[in-house]
Parts: sequence; structure tokens; C-alpha cells
Amino acid sequence: MAEKSSSTRVPVNFGILVFPTFQALDAFGPLDILNMLARDFPMNLSIISRTLDPVSTKHRDPSLNPLGSNFGESIVPTHDFSNAPPLDVLIIPGGFGVRADDLDPTIDFVRRTYPSLKFVLTVCTGSWIAARAGILDGRQATSNKRSWANTKVVGPDVKWVSHARWVMDGNIWTSSGVSAGMDATHAFVQEVYGREQAEKIAAELEYERHEDPSWDPFAEMYNLPKEGI
Amino acid sequence: MAEKSSSTRVPVNFGILVFPTFQALDAFGPLDILNMLARDFPMNLSIISRTLDPVSTKHRDPSLNPLGSNFGESIVPTHDFSNAPPLDVLIIPGGFGVRADDLDPTIDFVRRTYPSLKFVLTVCTGSWIAARAGILDGRQATSNKRSWANTKVVGPDVKWVSHARWVMDGNIWTSSGVSAGMDATHAFVQEVYGREQAEKIAAELEYERHEDPSWDPFAEMYNLPKEGI
Repeated sequence: MAEKSSSTRVPVNFGILVFPTFQALDAFGPLDILNMLARDFPMNLSIISRTLDPVSTKHRDPSLNPLGSNFGESIVPTHDFSNAPPLDVLIIPGGFGVRADDLDPTIDFVRRTYPSLKFVLTVCTGSWIAARAGILDGRQATSNKRSWANTKVVGPDVKWVSHARWVMDGNIWTSSGVSAGMDATHAFVQEVYGREQAEKIAAELEYERHEDPSWDPFAEMYNLPKEGI
Repeated sequence: MAEKSSSTRVPVNFGILVFPTFQALDAFGPLDILNMLARDFPMNLSIISRTLDPVSTKHRDPSLNPLGSNFGESIVPTHDFSNAPPLDVLIIPGGFGVRADDLDPTIDFVRRTYPSLKFVLTVCTGSWIAARAGILDGRQATSNKRSWANTKVVGPDVKWVSHARWVMDGNIWTSSGVSAGMDATHAFVQEVYGREQAEKIAAELEYERHEDPSWDPFAEMYNLPKEGI
């Protein structure tokens, strides 16, 4: 049986999925928290994409960049879907790219990798990829609040929680939009590595974290009905 | 005379300096705010480093990674110091790499680029690079709070403000540690592009920003005396 208890062994092998037009802070907020954690625990990070080419945050479709900005950042994958190593934790960021029509290999990777994972963390519309992989069916989960109506269409069998900074259901953590990934990741660190570790990292990053998963002024800002609670 | 007024023309050409062992969130917090802004304004980003090789957040010295973690992210530069285009705004992140002994070309780039810039934004110990370039002399500025004693040594002629989330003095914005860069960048957007724009981006990123530059529980956490205020 796969190792599932976080108390007996902490995760070692982390992976993050990246795809064109991912949201930078969805990825680098959680990653920088884990960068700090990796000084206190032996940890490996695989950056996984469809190919080993650098992956940019930029829009691929010029019509989605009507002002012609040339503004974005590229991250270098370490593995593709064919050679990614066994993972304990998979992080799935969101971003405009989750709406692309060529995401099937990415979704397949999540579907086939999930059974051997200890934990999954999605940020923002990264939850759409998890939902399309079927791993959220029947679970409570949350997502970005501005795209809430679409989220419910993408994951009709998910118990979406509308007012939540993050939701943990079993071994899957889902967070609300972009910045919420940093609160969810601190909460994950607290759950798995202890409060002291989470507080140490927040102090080093000078980050004032939200510790209440039900804190969600953005659900109110976007006038979402209270669902899934 | 160089254009200095932000009210007559908004910045177009942004650059960020990256160097080995930069702090990921120092860079990607501000950049993701600007990624959003670039949908509403035509903007260009240059990612500038000593060479065009990917630049990693990892420690270069194995003795600084005693547990042998293999954890970090690499960003792809678009320009090196010899071919960087004219810039309106330069962002300087911090991180452990500011302590490296091969930073002189990086500091020289800041020194020679500064006169033609409209704005500089430093995050965390990115202020050390700005201080070593001499562009903070006689100005109020802030920096990461955990390294405060060293900051004062690096910039003996800077009016360091110990209790500050960020400081704006003339056209230079300096922020406190890591996460503070996101508050400083929202404040910069508010100053240059208006409050509505800053609020729009914060809502999209689901980011609860600190709007008071004197908010600084971390200065208190690290027991810093009140200096420079």
C-alpha cells in the first residue's frame, strides 16, 4: 500500500506542472515557500512540462494581447511527461493557459500520477486541471473566485466551496485565486512539518499569512452565493 | 533633460535584474502584478543578467546546501548587460546571491543605467545592490529586516528606515523582505497608474495588500530600533 501518513515520513520529491500561459505567482508563491523549506529538509523539485522547452507566462494567441505587450517570464522545465520521476507532492498552478485546447497530455499526466502521490496542491484555476483529471470528483475543493461560474462547469461532480481561501479534502489541497496559494502552502507546511516551521518561513518571507481557511473577502467582492459549505 | 514626470507618460520598458541565487518571490511577486498591468498598458519586459544562460535560485556553493536538496527554479534572461535596451523601470530583487563575490558587473550595470531610468524598485536585499551602486546615498530606503545589521554596513551613507514595509524617496522605491515587494509594487502601480488600477490587480490576484508603508510587524519581530524615521 502506498505510504499515506504524513506523520511517518515527510515528502521528499516535489513536482510542479507548468504549461504555456501559467500564472507566475500561482507557481512561484508556493515554490518560494518550499525553497525555504528545502534548507531544513532534504527535498527535490522537478519542473514538469510537455517538453523541455522553456515555458512562458505569455499569451500564445496574439488576439489575447491586444495592446501588443511583450511582457512575461519563462521557466526551464527539468522533466517532461515521459521522464518525470516518482513524486510525493504535485503542485498545479492555474492561469489563462488552463483554457487552452491542447491540455490533454497535461491532464493525463495528473490522472496517471495521482495514485502514487502523497499530496496534491492546486492554486487558482489549477483546480480545473485537477477536476478534468477526475481527481476532485466527490471532494470538497475551491478555486479562483472571478471564474467561479466556469469552474462549476469544468468540474460538475466536485463539491465546490465558494467561500474559502483554501480547502483540504483528503490529500488534495485546493486554493482560491493566485495569492491564496501562499496561504494554502503555509497551511500545508504547518500540517505536515509543524506550526513552528510554517511560522519560521512566514517570518523569513515577511509574509502575513491568513490562517483561517474560511477567510475570503474575494468571494464577497465577486458576490458569490455561499455554496458547498 | 530626461523625462522624469510620471504624470506625462507612463513607463513602457521594464527590466528586471537576475543573478544566481536570487529570491524567487522577490522577482515573481512584483512581476506578476506587472504581468496583469501589461494587459491594460503596452509594456515590455527585459530579463537582464550577466549572460543569457538560465539563472537559478539554487545555491552555487554546496556548503550552503548542507542537506543536499535539489530544489530551485531557473528563469531565462532575454538580455545580458551588453545588449539590454533602454529602460524606464528597473526592478532589483534580493536573495542570498547579493552576498556573492562576483556581483561587480551587476552593480556596474545599475550604476550606469540609473541616470536614464524613470523609476527603480528594489525588493528585500536588492537594496544592497542599489546601495553598492551608490544610487541610495543620502536617500531614505528600507530593506529586509532579518539582515538589518548587515544592510547598514553595506550602505553606510543611506538613510535606512528600519520600520517600513516600503519607502519611496524620489524615483527609488525600496521594499522590506520578500513579500513586501508585492505591497510596494501595488503602491507603485497606484502612484503611477492610479488607485483603480492597483485595486483591480489586487482583486484579480486575490491579494490583500498593505497600503500603509509604515506597517511593519517584522521590524518588531526582529526587535529593530526605530531608525531613519
